[in-house]
Order: sequence, then structure tokens, then C-alpha cells
Amino acid sequence: MDPSQLARLLDQFREGKLDRDQVLSQLARLPFEDLGFARLDHHRALRKGFPEVIFAGGKTAEQTRVIFEKIAMRSDRVLATHASPETADAVSRSLPEVRYHPQSRCLALDRRPDEKRIGNVLVVCAGTSDLPVAEEAAVTAHLMGAEVHQINDAGVAGIHRLLSETQALQEARVLVVVAGMEGALPSVVAGLVSVPVVAVPTSVGYGASFGGVAALLAMLNSCASGISVVNIDNGFGAGYQAALINRLGAP
Amino acid sequence: MDPSQLARLLDQFREGKLDRDQVLSQLARLPFEDLGFARLDHHRALRKGFPEVIFAGGKTAEQTRVIFEKIAMRSDRVLATHASPETADAVSRSLPEVRYHPQSRCLALDRRPDEKRIGNVLVVCAGTSDLPVAEEAAVTAHLMGAEVHQINDAGVAGIHRLLSETQALQEARVLVVVAGMEGALPSVVAGLVSVPVVAVPTSVGYGASFGGVAALLAMLNSCASGISVVNIDNGFGAGYQAALINRLGAP
Amino acid sequence: MDPSQLARLLDQFREGKLDRDQVLSQLARLPFEDLGFARLDHHRALRKGFPEVIFAGGKTAEQTRVIFEKIAMRSDRVLATHASPETADAVSRSLPEVRYHPQSRCLALDRRPDEKRIGNVLVVCAGTSDLPVAEEAAVTAHLMGAEVHQINDAGVAGIHRLLSETQALQEARVLVVVAGMEGALPSVVAGLVSVPVVAVPTSVGYGASFGGVAALLAMLNSCASGISVVNIDNGFGAGYQAALINRLGAP
Amino acid sequence: MDPSQLARLLDQFREGKLDRDQVLSQLARLPFEDLGFARLDHHRALRKGFPEVIFAGGKTAEQTRVIFEKIAMRSDRVLATHASPETADAVSRSLPEVRYHPQSRCLALDRRPDEKRIGNVLVVCAGTSDLPVAEEAAVTAHLMGAEVHQINDAGVAGIHRLLSETQALQEARVLVVVAGMEGALPSVVAGLVSVPVVAVPTSVGYGASFGGVAALLAMLNSCASGISVVNIDNGFGAGYQAALINRLGAP
Amino acid sequence: MDPSQLARLLDQFREGKLDRDQVLSQLARLPFEDLGFARLDHHRALRKGFPEVIFAGGKTAEQTRVIFEKIAMRSDRVLATHASPETADAVSRSLPEVRYHPQSRCLALDRRPDEKRIGNVLVVCAGTSDLPVAEEAAVTAHLMGAEVHQINDAGVAGIHRLLSETQALQEARVLVVVAGMEGALPSVVAGLVSVPVVAVPTSVGYGASFGGVAALLAMLNSCASGISVVNIDNGFGAGYQAALINRLGAP
Amino acid sequence: MDPSQLARLLDQFREGKLDRDQVLSQLARLPFEDLGFARLDHHRALRKGFPEVIFAGGKTAEQTRVIFEKIAMRSDRVLATHASPETADAVSRSLPEVRYHPQSRCLALDRRPDEKRIGNVLVVCAGTSDLPVAEEAAVTAHLMGAEVHQINDAGVAGIHRLLSETQALQEARVLVVVAGMEGALPSVVAGLVSVPVVAVPTSVGYGASFGGVAALLAMLNSCASGISVVNIDNGFGAGYQAALINRLGAP
Amino acid sequence: MDPSQLARLLDQFREGKLDRDQVLSQLARLPFEDLGFARLDHHRALRKGFPEVIFAGGKTAEQTRVIFEKIAMRSDRVLATHASPETADAVSRSLPEVRYHPQSRCLALDRRPDEKRIGNVLVVCAGTSDLPVAEEAAVTAHLMGAEVHQINDAGVAGIHRLLSETQALQEARVLVVVAGMEGALPSVVAGLVSVPVVAVPTSVGYGASFGGVAALLAMLNSCASGISVVNIDNGFGAGYQAALINRLGAP
Amino acid sequence: MDPSQLARLLDQFREGKLDRDQVLSQLARLPFEDLGFARLDHHRALRKGFPEVIFAGGKTAEQTRVIFEKIAMRSDRVLATHASPETADAVSRSLPEVRYHPQSRCLALDRRPDEKRIGNVLVVCAGTSDLPVAEEAAVTAHLMGAEVHQINDAGVAGIHRLLSETQALQEARVLVVVAGMEGALPSVVAGLVSVPVVAVPTSVGYGASFGGVAALLAMLNSCASGISVVNIDNGFGAGYQAALINRLGAP
Repeated sequence: MDPSQLARLLDQFREGKLDRDQVLSQLARLPFEDLGFARLDHHRALRKGFPEVIFAGGKTAEQTRVIFEKIAMRSDRVLATHASPETADAVSRSLPEVRYHPQSRCLALDRRPDEKRIGNVLVVCAGTSDLPVAEEAAVTAHLMGAEVHQINDAGVAGIHRLLSETQALQEARVLVVVAGMEGALPSVVAGLVSVPVVAVPTSVGYGASFGGVAALLAMLNSCASGISVVNIDNGFGAGYQAALINRLGAP
Repeated sequence: MDPSQLARLLDQFREGKLDRDQVLSQLARLPFEDLGFARLDHHRALRKGFPEVIFAGGKTAEQTRVIFEKIAMRSDRVLATHASPETADAVSRSLPEVRYHPQSRCLALDRRPDEKRIGNVLVVCAGTSDLPVAEEAAVTAHLMGAEVHQINDAGVAGIHRLLSETQALQEARVLVVVAGMEGALPSVVAGLVSVPVVAVPTSVGYGASFGGVAALLAMLNSCASGISVVNIDNGFGAGYQAALINRLGAP
Repeated sequence: MDPSQLARLLDQFREGKLDRDQVLSQLARLPFEDLGFARLDHHRALRKGFPEVIFAGGKTAEQTRVIFEKIAMRSDRVLATHASPETADAVSRSLPEVRYHPQSRCLALDRRPDEKRIGNVLVVCAGTSDLPVAEEAAVTAHLMGAEVHQINDAGVAGIHRLLSETQALQEARVLVVVAGMEGALPSVVAGLVSVPVVAVPTSVGYGASFGGVAALLAMLNSCASGISVVNIDNGFGAGYQAALINRLGAP
Repeated sequence: MDPSQLARLLDQFREGKLDRDQVLSQLARLPFEDLGFARLDHHRALRKGFPEVIFAGGKTAEQTRVIFEKIAMRSDRVLATHASPETADAVSRSLPEVRYHPQSRCLALDRRPDEKRIGNVLVVCAGTSDLPVAEEAAVTAHLMGAEVHQINDAGVAGIHRLLSETQALQEARVLVVVAGMEGALPSVVAGLVSVPVVAVPTSVGYGASFGGVAALLAMLNSCASGISVVNIDNGFGAGYQAALINRLGAP
Repeated sequence: MDPSQLARLLDQFREGKLDRDQVLSQLARLPFEDLGFARLDHHRALRKGFPEVIFAGGKTAEQTRVIFEKIAMRSDRVLATHASPETADAVSRSLPEVRYHPQSRCLALDRRPDEKRIGNVLVVCAGTSDLPVAEEAAVTAHLMGAEVHQINDAGVAGIHRLLSETQALQEARVLVVVAGMEGALPSVVAGLVSVPVVAVPTSVGYGASFGGVAALLAMLNSCASGISVVNIDNGFGAGYQAALINRLGAP
Repeated sequence: MDPSQLARLLDQFREGKLDRDQVLSQLARLPFEDLGFARLDHHRALRKGFPEVIFAGGKTAEQTRVIFEKIAMRSDRVLATHASPETADAVSRSLPEVRYHPQSRCLALDRRPDEKRIGNVLVVCAGTSDLPVAEEAAVTAHLMGAEVHQINDAGVAGIHRLLSETQALQEARVLVVVAGMEGALPSVVAGLVSVPVVAVPTSVGYGASFGGVAALLAMLNSCASGISVVNIDNGFGAGYQAALINRLGAP
Repeated sequence: MDPSQLARLLDQFREGKLDRDQVLSQLARLPFEDLGFARLDHHRALRKGFPEVIFAGGKTAEQTRVIFEKIAMRSDRVLATHASPETADAVSRSLPEVRYHPQSRCLALDRRPDEKRIGNVLVVCAGTSDLPVAEEAAVTAHLMGAEVHQINDAGVAGIHRLLSETQALQEARVLVVVAGMEGALPSVVAGLVSVPVVAVPTSVGYGASFGGVAALLAMLNSCASGISVVNIDNGFGAGYQAALINRLGAP
Repeated sequence: MDPSQLARLLDQFREGKLDRDQVLSQLARLPFEDLGFARLDHHRALRKGFPEVIFAGGKTAEQTRVIFEKIAMRSDRVLATHASPETADAVSRSLPEVRYHPQSRCLALDRRPDEKRIGNVLVVCAGTSDLPVAEEAAVTAHLMGAEVHQINDAGVAGIHRLLSETQALQEARVLVVVAGMEGALPSVVAGLVSVPVVAVPTSVGYGASFGGVAALLAMLNSCASGISVVNIDNGFGAGYQAALINRLGAP
């Protein structure tokens, strides 16, 4: 039942075709979205500034293309993550303005590329092998409207490289900190800043890194305050969360 | 070497007692805090609006009392977590204005209790057994200056109880969502709001809950966007992170 | 807003005090239970034939007593699991008709004890140490209206003891099979019957049983069809599920 | 020794060729199936309405073809799971009426396709990536004689999509609920219905989903009653269990 | 149905009171033990030379006493493992000839203590903390009729202590090797002998020994041939298995 | 220093070229094998009746061929496990009498194939997918001189198939029991026999079988006595251990 | 056979009572220590500068006292770890010069307390809760003859506290770095120095620290070179290893 | 700001262009390396005797070539680990003097190959499958200036092979001990020597070796003193640590 059906229900009631109990009874059984819930959801999508994101990982190039186009019909910004080069080709044939980021395998459509970005999301990355995840976070936050900066290759074993960036760290509104192996970077960074840090463990490492578990546990057990954590290799999730935080009260 | 020592160094240089190379050489070996770093750190503490928090868990009542008093000399707000009733007694003998929260075992000193709180941190809790962790989050965020509200006992198995609070959920600036067992609540909540959710798994459960691991994994793998996670039972960490987020741009 | 409020809203609409758009707008923001959803939930409780069950594990005797009495006001049957003897004493002082099962630590109120039980739930148990969990399942299913039988001490290392019960196994409508250690019993039982088996791993064992994990994994990996599994030591959950299954089409 | 041998034994006894002790001695050493146990087993297969199912996963196309044909000689319905397209080709060359479901990789023979299905098994699925497992459950239950319906893409992060299906959920006799990632869907569904839910965790996810372990643990720790769980990705097992439950007392 | 019932059945058949089909039908439904299976089991107990062993761990002193006495009525040798001193007192009041081994907490009755032991079971133990488990193995094997010897405190970090016992190692028919921490001893021992080694990991250790898991994994992955493993701390199981092996062809 | 060197040392001593202290000093520094230890090891190889076994898994066909030939120069029986068809080809070009078992990937040379085998090793196997591991055990034990029999496809979900083999089970001197998935077969078998059972978990299964861990844990936690366990998929180790046991006192 | 026996053997040979072959044969069967191996071991103990260390954890006060005294008869320095206050009392009654360290529960006897310590072992500690483990390392290394220094409470979340100690860090010959929770400190320290770091994870933490596993994994996966790791809470092992390293070439 | 900028700052101060407070304020905000920290780091690289090592694992041949050449411009010794043959080809085209070690996949440039190596690092290896990791350790330590020796194939199951090398073991200044499977070798070796042992678990094994976890746990739980451990398969890390230790006080 769409809103017009609901309107009709009210009309029938006012016209005396249904009595009050009949209306109440029908309302009680309404699917929720019929009561404007879908609109609410629609509002939420608008507010979040971002439609559903496509996880292209388990989809064929063709499947992703179809979904991508469908979302592109009602949205100026579309994001597919884990997109292969083949998928990028397929989508860009019909939507030539998409941009493919091969390192992070993000495929992004942005029809308002010159729109002013807000706030300051800083993505910090421990090693070069962590760059794909860091880029996924950066692309996501940028597409969601955030001003994004990146500091790369700032591992804790060469702490002076990180400390030389103290000013940039302290100017950010929110930080995404990406690290594999021992996952120590978020602890050090959070000790240097007074804003929220979203930590992303990566699967970079071998042996007892257990595909990122070592880094994940380190981040969950950080001795620094002001850190929360997303799933292993979940650059998208961190970028999304950072963009939500960055938007709070941003000028 | 404190700043006055640094000043003296410069004076000696200007007076010709040291040449430039000697000054450079000494600067290169300076401990970092001598260059204002300690002040910087002090600034950071001020900005964070919160001094070091005492983890009373592994300390005697007497040890906690000493530390608590020392911090109370230079701060209007002090927090000790995991404080036993004995610890609370010991501290309150010398600082009668502290308040003890027996459920969450938080011991808090707030000399500006009437100060206006800012923003809107909402702490949502799945079951009554999760309340101690939820309260720890709420006490922490409140002491850090946030306006805090709580919704309790809103487990996903009775989804209507949660849905009936939709308005409160959507009015928050940031949410802390606390759940044990299957840890599903953050996923449902994050689907209803457009602001950041900080998820806290608790050790509530038995058997294959593995002391909160089941809930932790569920939260890390949430299909909803806008969730980041803290350690099991870490109500303090979530409240701290939420307070940092809430402060961004709050009026 | 309760139903009477909803009725008033409709009255105001029919009386012209609100126009259709105003009504639609208010409906869209209604908390869900205001639309009869709460009643629906009430209906569900009636249909399940069982009110909320009290997990007395993390509660004081007094807390459990209060909740138990409250449920007993609107229900003929009440169940608390993981109840200590002290809790049993506290509740039985005000509700002398409750019955305490010390082995399974179930505390049950049944004001219709002579009511005819339906169907045939058979609870099979591998070793004597598994009996508390088996009894929890049996008490739960019985209180929910099922005819319940038990076979105890039928471990797979003495397979003839189990086989001598083949007839009883094959007469059941649904079986609860409880086992610790290697958890092999459900596989053997499910091979002998053509009805659903609900398997319950227990924490009985030591060393590499890892508190029931060995039995849990065995049951999840059963080579027999027709088995589903509940959490370690979750006799209540198995009894509940068996009672739901048993009720389907039972005469 | 087949039944005719047993008959011969009795004949020899009545004819005086064997005395009573000789018969007793031979009976005591009989393999069990000689005493009608094999028939019993045959009866069980008939009652279960389903012969042995072929797990084609670790078999060559040729091996599966041979077994498939052998079962098809004595049964109207045959199912092979985890069948590759090559296997499907091999089997369909000799049994052209088989139907291959490429998504779930089920290969099914049904010589009574128009037979009336009974009851109402509802298969609910969290995300599109979970569809292969959901389809395996649906195909299995259908082949075993159940009326089957499906609801797809009803993840908990968009709870209104699920709630809009409340009526369908409440009309089912038994539900199979399939979910990967955080595995929260069964908890929400079980809170909306009063019949058994068979939960299937899937390996959909990455990082800390650990190949479905996160979803499995969530389902085992559900705060909702009336849930039992099968192995990760075991759509067949869930469909089988649901069909057994559905058959109980179905008209 | 006991054998006499079976005899009666045959009599009724010969007397024409039952026809052949009726006999066949009844035989098909016989519980298995009715066919002498129970006697078979009795024979098995005799052959194993040992009745059921009592795991006193989860039982009260009184419960253990009752079972112990019951077995002692029909057996000259009885063993209870994991028996507390209280249990030992309770049992020895009625059976003064029992012997309690406080280190391994074994309680043993042996009415034929002077009977010649056979073969040669050697129990080797890595450290003094492993002694309780080693003694449990030794007491078990001895009670089951084996000649048992022990070598204690032969850890691999002082390999010469072990090598100085080479002759004793090579004279054994079967060895039980007990070790905690890194569990390396069985590998070294099995390299020195040409008979079977039964390895027992113990929970001795801390930190990353994970309650014996480190030792268990080491033993399962031994580079030496001729090793099989029992559960952590399962001295009884190892002694039992060694006694079975030792008995094979022992003079 | 070889024995002749040792003899020379003694000669020099007797001839007065070295005094006693010099001899003692040199003896104290001797490598161990110089004192006959190597001969001892040689004796051990003879006694075990089997030279070093080649794990061809991580070797090239050429590497395996070289080692195989070298052992074949001094031994009538040689075994390589985990050998690929290419390796089998390479070896059989120079040693045409080797026999390749493609299912278990064993490559065996036996120059005394008609030699009488001793004892009775029975290899029991739960499902057809476990056959490669079972065959590896059988080939190993046979090559080591044991009479070997096999029972295949005797899973616990069809217990009558196993029970019909009771006589064969009870005639064995030692059993190897191979099972994947829930690993329950050894428990049932050990309850039927009075001789040692060597249990082999296999990696057959999926999801929560965790590559054989479920079966391994089940076997370690067996409620039956007389079971010891080898590593996952270690058919060779079980066959070797069974052959050692079988040889004890075999006629 | 002790050395005097060996001398006697040689004498008998020179006197012609044994011929050369008889001597060779006896030598081949000698237990290893008879050939000076025990002396070698004695030498090793001397070189390591430390006799066997007593792990008092699983021993009674009386047992520890007896062993302690026995070692004290032949050694100037004795160490017992994990000693309770009761144990300390028992030992100090007979050896009043022992010193008890209550925080680390080390009990040490040092009869040459004024002996010059060598080298420079620096023990760095992340948080106050890690102090007991750090002290155990320091006491051990000191007793083994090392000059030991300590830096406490230098967690990575306040990196400036660590950096202000750069000079002390760079003056050490070897460092022991102790940390719980996320275990990040060794990575940062190893990046600042050019000597070996021995890392000690502690069980300090809760929830997903899993009793020190998080810290252990972090240290094993360090991105810094020059780190090796000991078991969780193994301060003794780290102190011992550091003392061995420190002794290499120390003046 | 480089040192010359710092010099300029001082000049401006002496010339009166900046007052003392302005200088202090600027110094307080300086990036750390501007104060000579970078030089310090440069010194550290020189002291360690080794530039940054290239982990070629996740890089293309071209990427590795570029980095390799860059380091080769300022260093006489360069090491890349995990280098494929293709990478080796690419680098050797421009730097023909590099040497590729195919077994360990190390690619090394050494422009001072004839320089005298110092000390004595002994790399001991349990089985032939562990050789690649052992070689990686040896190549690393050698390139860092250590005299390196190797003992291969000295597994604990043939302990005499190890004991025959006692002299070599005791002549080393530091040992790297490499083992997979049960990882017992370091315990035995550390019992024979009085110098530090760096233990390296390898992923050699199958089943319950869990990719090297069994060996890792064994090494962490060693009953021998003087062992510290690196990550699974981390031959580089062990060689590096051994070279650091070996350099201490080496002549």
C-alpha cells in the first residue's frame, strides 16, 4: 500500500464507507513502509548523503553494471567497492564519467566533482602495502562530501616520520588510521590528537598475523582513548564512519 | 631541560658564550618535551576536557585513593572505572563529593555538576545484563560534558520495543549501542539513524558466546554502515569516543 | 500514542479539525506499537503458549522473585532457569505452589498441572553428567504443554544400550539429544529416526573439550540429516524449540 | 543372511534339523540387518520421503552420474548437492528430466513434479550473496514434498523491508533463515513468529567473519527463543530439517 | 526380551501357535540385547580385564561410594579417577582395602595384588609438575595387569638425563610419555625406541600454553613415527590404551 | 671419530703414548655416534622393519626419485607418501617394480611381496571421501608386514552397517578408524572391541569442520576407552602405529 | 658409571684384564654422562652463571624451601620465581639473607651482592600493571650478573614520555620491553635503538586481549627489526635471555 | 625545516630580527626531524650496518627493481626477501653483481664480499623442508657482517644426529634454530648451549600444525631457558636479531 492508498483509506473513512474500527484494524496490519516509513528511509538516504553502496566482490561485471546504472538514475554519486578492472570497463562503457581507482578497486561516479568538500578527514597509513585499504577509505569519505587528506608510510618503527606530521594530525576533525602487522599505529596517533580515530586493521602480514587478526586485536586493546575499530580491510566502513563524524557540525 | 633552560641556552648563544654549532648540537639532543612538547601535551589534556582516567581494576583502594586525589588537585572532573565499593569508601572519605555508581563501578568527581551539557549522546542497551557496561559509557560521556540519554532493554528479539523509540534514536548526535549474546542490536540501530554508532560488545552470554567474542565478531561484520567497535565490555572507551564525536561542532 | 489517541486522530480528521495531509504526516511519525503492534506482540505471547522466561543466572534472589510474581499475575505458567536454591526459597515463600528442580536449577510454576500434555518429546542423554541440561530441556518442554519422556545414560561407547531403546526413539515426534565430550550421540540417534532432532552440546569434559566446543562442532558437522543445534548447555533453548515443533499438528 | 535365509533357519528348526539351542546360537551371531533391520532402514527411507542425498562436492562427474542413476532406479526423487555444471551435463545425458539449479548447484530429479506440496516452509535470506545457500534449502525442502516460499534480501540494516513481510512470516509453519556477516536475521525473525526457525549461517563476509564463524556464533547465541542452527553454508541440512518439521501433522 | 523369551518364541513357533511370518515380524522388532548382545557385552568386559571406570570428578563422595561398592561386588579390581580425599575416606570406610593415591587422586581396589603383572609398560614424565598425570597412567595400567615402570623428570632441555635411560626405554613393550609446556618429549623418546608410544599432553604451563593446547599440538605434529595421542591430562586414557597394547601377545 | 679411531686411541694408551687422563679427556669430547650410537640407530632401523619414509609432498619428482633409489639400495621395502603421478612415473622408470596407489598417492616398493603377513590390522572408514586416508594407513601397515583388512563406508548415521561387521571388528588385533565430519566412528567402534583403536581424523567436511578440527576434537574427547589419536589426515602415522602394535607378540 | 669407573676400565685394559674389543663394547653401552657429559653439563651451569631456577608456582612452601636450600649449598646465587609470601617466609627462616620481591614474587639469594655487574640491560615497561613482569625480568638479569636499569610507564599512547628517554634507550646493550594490551611498545622501541630487543607480552588487559594473546601476536608481527619474543608474562625468560646476550663480549 | 633553516632561525635571533619568545615558539612547533632527529636516524642506520630491507612479496618486479637501485646508490649492501625469479632477473639486468638464492628467494647485493665476517652465528635446521627459512636467516646474518655456519636436517626424532654436532653448537656465539611440525628442536639445542637461541617456527606440516602455530606455541612454551622467538617463517627476522646479538662485543 503506497501513500496514495493510505490517502484513499482516509477518504473512504471520511466518506463513511469505512467506520473508525475498520480503519484502525487496517492500519494495525499495514506493512510499515506504507505509513511513510519508506519515505522516512528515503529521507535517511538523503541525509546520509549517500545511496546504497555496491559490494562488487561477489558479482559479475554485468550484474554490477546493471545495479550501478539503476542507482545512477536517482543519485549524483555512486560507489562500487571491490570492483575488478573488467567491471570498471563494463560500467564505464555506459557511464563514461565514472572513475576507477585500480589500487583500491573503487569505482566511483561523482556528477558534482567540484562541489566544496567540508571538514577534514585525515587517512593515515602504516605501510605501502596498506595503501589499497587507505585509498578505499579516502575515496569513500571524499565521495560522501568530506575534505580528505592522506599521510602514507608512517609506521611506528620509524616514529619520527609520524611525529614530523604532528601538525597535520592535529588539524584533522577525524582520523582514519590503517595498519596491518602489529596494528600499533592507531594507539600512537590517538595519543597525539584530541579527535576521534577510526582504526582499520589490514590483512597485511604473514604467519601469526592470521590474516589481520593480530592487528585487529591490537586495535581493540589500545591503551589510548578515542579509538573505535572496523573490520579487517574494511576501508569503506572506516571512510563511511569518518564521513558521518566529519559532517557533525562541520561548517 | 625545561623551557627556562632553553631560554638560557638562547641567551648564552646571543651573549656569544656558545656558537651556533654548539647550540644546534645541543638542540639535536634535547629530550622532546623540553621543546614545548610537554606543554603541547598539557594543551591536549585541556582540549580533550578530561584528565587521565584511573583504571582501578588492578589497584588497591589505597593506591586508587592517592592517584584520585592527585588528579583532583588539578582537575574539576575525575573518573575511576572498575572501582570496588571499598575503593569508593576510601576515596569518599577524603573527597566526600565523589559519586559512586555501584552498577557500573564508576567513581566520579564532578565539581561543575550544573554546567550545561552539550549535544546528544544516546546509549542504547540490549538487555538488563548489559546495563553495567551501558552505565559506564553514560557516566563517562556525561562527565566529559555530553548530554546523555539512555534506552534500556531494547533487544532485537522484540524489535517493536526498539522501533517505538525511533524518534529518540533519530534525535541523537551519536549513539553508543551495547549488546551481548549475538550482538545484533548495532546493525538494526545503524539502519535507523544517519549518525555514527559506537558499538560495545559485552561478555553477557554463555557457551559459544566465548566471553563476548560472538558479539564482538557480529559487530565487526555488521551489514550496516556507520558502525565502529570497541573492546568487549569497554563501556568507558565507547563513552569516551562518543563524547569526542559529540563535541565536534556541538552548539 | 495509544489506540485511543489514534481513534481521536481519526475523529479529528472526520470532524474537519485536521486535513488529510495532517493526518498522513502524523501517522508517518507514529511509534509503531501505537498501531496495534503491541497488541500483535501480545497475541504472539498467547500463541507461543508461554510468557517470557526468566534467566535467573545474573540476578539476585530478590530481583527474580519480583519478576516471577509479576509474570505469575498474568500467566498460569512461569519458568525461571539457572535459579539457585536461595532464589527458589525466595520465590516459594510468596508462591508456595512453585516447584524447584535442583538438578537443572529450574523453578517452575504450573497452575494447570493436570492439563493433558500433547505429542511426544523424547529427551535422550549421553551420560549422567549431562542430566542437568537434559532435565532443563524436559522441564521446559513439559511446561510448554508437551508430553515428555527421557532416556538417560545412552552413550555411543555402549551402543547396545541405545539400540535397545529403538522403539521409544521411533515413537517420538521430536527428539532432544544431549551430549558432552565428543558429542556423537545425535548422529547415531538421527540415523535411527525420521523426525527432527534438536542437539544440545554440553560443557561436560575436560582438556580439549574446550568447555563444550568439541561437542558443538561434532553436532554441527553431523553426517546424519535432520539435526539442528543449540548453544552449549542450552537445555532451555532445545526444550523450547522441541515444544514448538511438537505442537505443529499435534492432536 | 537375508530374510529368506532367516525363514530357512526357522523352517530347519520346525523340521527338526536344528534344535532350539542351535537356532538361538545362530540368532545371537546374526548381523543385525538380517533380522529385518535392513527392512526397517528401508522403511525409514520411505518415511523420510527421501533416499540418500549425493554430496557431489568431492566426486567426479562420472562417479556422481553412476550413483545418481542407481538411486533413480528405486526412487522418484533424487538430489545431488554441490554439483558442477559438468556433473549436471553428465547426469542429464542419461536422465534428461533432471533439473539443474546453477546458483545453488543442486541437481534434482522429480518424477512427480505435480504432486501437491504440503504445509508452508518459508526461506528468508539476508542478502543477495546468501541466495545460493537459500536456494539449496528451498530446493531440498520442495523435493521432500514441502510447499516452499522465499523472501530475499531482508537484511536487518533495513529492518522495514523485513517488517513489511510480517504477514508472510507469520503464515509459515517453519522458517529457514539464511544470513552471513553478523548473522542477526534469525534473532529478529524469531521474535516475530511463533513457529520453529532453522538458522543457517553462511560464509558470506570477509576479515573477521572467519568464513562464517561470526554468523554461526551469533545464531547460537541468539537472545530469541525457537532457533536451532545448522553448519555454515549447509542449506541442504536446513531444508531437510525444515521439511521434517513441516511434515509433522501437516494436512 | 531375555533369551528365555526368545526360546519361548521358538517353542510357540514349533508348536504352531505362531506362524513363520509372525516370528519373523517379532524378531525384526527385538531389542538388540535380547539376542545375546548383552552377553556379548559382558564377555567384552571380561576380556578387557576391567569393569567400567568411575570418573569421580563430578560426583559427591556418597555417589561415588555407592557406585564403587556396586562394582566391587562383581569385580576384584575397581578404579575411580579424580577422587577427592573426602571420597577416598567415604569409600575406605566400607572397603578398607582400597588404596588412595593422593598425587593422582586415584582410588583403587585390587583384591589380587600379588597376581603376576605381565609385559612392560614404561611411563616417562617430563617434569615434576606432570607427575600426577603420569601416576594416573601408571596406576591404571598396573590395575589392568601390566608390569609398570616410571622414569620421572626427563625433560628435553637436559637431554642427557633422558639418554642415560636409553636401556630402560628400549626394554619397554609400550611407553606412555607425559609432558606439558612444549610437549617435545614424545618425539625424542619415539626416536629412541621401536615400540608404540602413547603421548599425553598436560596442562602444565602458562600463557601461550593455553591449558595444554601447545603440548597437544606438538604431539599431534611429531616428526617421529610411532606416536598416538590422548586428551590433555588424560593419564587414565593413556594407561588404559598402553595396557591394551601391552597385553597383545604378552607372555 | 669412527670405531677404528677409538681402537687406535686405546692402542696408543696401552703403548704408553697417551696417559690415562689424556684418554679420559678425549673420550669426554667424543661425538656420541663414535661410541657405537650410530650402530645402535642402525639396529633400531632394522628392528622397526622399516627404513625412513619419504614425505614426497614438498619435493620435486626428481628429488624423490633420488632419495627413493638410495633407500632402495639398502632396503627391500620403501615407501613414499603424498607422491604425485609425475613422481610415480619418475621413480618407476628406474624401479619398475614399484606400485603406485593413486587414491592415497602412496608409492611403494616391496621386494618380498609374498612374505607372510602377520597379525590382523583392520582399517575402518566412515565415508567414501575418507578412503584416501584409510588406504594410506592400509598400504603403510601392509608394507610393514601386517595382515590388513578394510571396512569402508561405515558411518555412524547408519549404525546397522557397522554392527553387521561386529565379527570382523572383534577379530582384529588393532584397529585404525578413519573419519571426518563429526569424527564419531572411533567412539562407537571402541565400544565394540577390546583391543587398541588408533583414530585418524580427516579434513573431510566444510564450514565448522575447520579442516578436520571438529573430528580431531571429537576423537580426543571420546567417551570410550582404548582410543589414541594421530594428526588430521595422517593415515601413514596411524598405519605405522598400528603395525608397531600389531607386531607385539604376533605369531 | 662415574669417571673413576671409566678410569678403572682403562686400568683393567692396560693391565690386560680386558682386551680391546671388550673395552669398546663396554664403551658403546655406557650411559652418556659417564663419559664426562655430566661434567660438561656442570661446566655449562658454571658458564651460564646460574644454577637451575625454581618455579615455585606449583609447589608448597615446604617443597620450595627444601630445593632452595639444596641449591644454595652449591651455589652463591639462587632464584625462585612465582613464590608466595608464605614460601618466602619458609625459606628466609633457614636462609635469612634471601630477599623477597613481593611485586614480582621473586625470591633471590645473592651471596656476592657487591660484585660488579656488567654491561647494560634496560627493562622498559608500558604500564604500571606490567610492573610485576618487568621486575621479574630485572631481578633475574641482575642476579645473573647484569647491570640493570628500568624505565616504567612509557606507553605508546603518550609517546613523548618514551622519546624523552631516547638517550637511556640508546645506551643499553640489550633491552627487555614489557607490554600488555595492544603490545605496541617493542615496535616503537626497536625503531629507536640498534641493539636486540627481547619483547614480553603480559596478560594485562581484558575482553579481546585474551589473556595476553593480543600483545603476543602484536610483538610477533612487529614491523620493526631486531625483536624476538618470549611467552606471555614470562619476565624470567626475558631477563635470562637478556642476561645471556648482555654477557657476550661485555667488558 | 632542515638544519640550515634552523641555523637561519638562530641567525635571525642573534641579529635581533626575532626575539627570544618568537624563537621558543617556533622551536616548539618544529617537526622533530628538523632538530637533528633525522640525522640521528641516519646514524642509527649506519650503526645497524644495514639499510632498510625490501619485502618484495607484495611488489612487482619493476617496483622492487626501482627501490633496490635507489638503496644501492647509498649502500654497499642491499637485501630483498621473498623475491621471485622474475624480480631477480629484473634487478640483475641493471645490477649484475646481485646474487639470487632461489631456495630462500633472497636477492642480495654485497659490494664488499671479501670483508672479514665477525663472530659465529650458527643456523640449525630440523628438516629439509625448513631449509628455505634457514637459508633466509643465514643470508641475512651474513650480509649484516656475521660469520655464519649451518647444520641441516637435525630433527629431534634422530637425536644422535644433533648430539654429534655438540661441539659446533657450543662454539657458536648465537644460534638460530629453525623447525616446523612440533617445533621441539630449540628446546633440545638450548639445553646444550650457554648462549642465546633465536627460535623460528616454520609453516612446515599439515593438519593440526595450523600453518606453523603448533611449532610457534611449542617454542614459546619451551622448558629450556635462553630462547626467544620470531614470527612463523620469519627467517629474515631471526637472522637480523642473531646478527645484532653476534655483533655485541665481537672481536
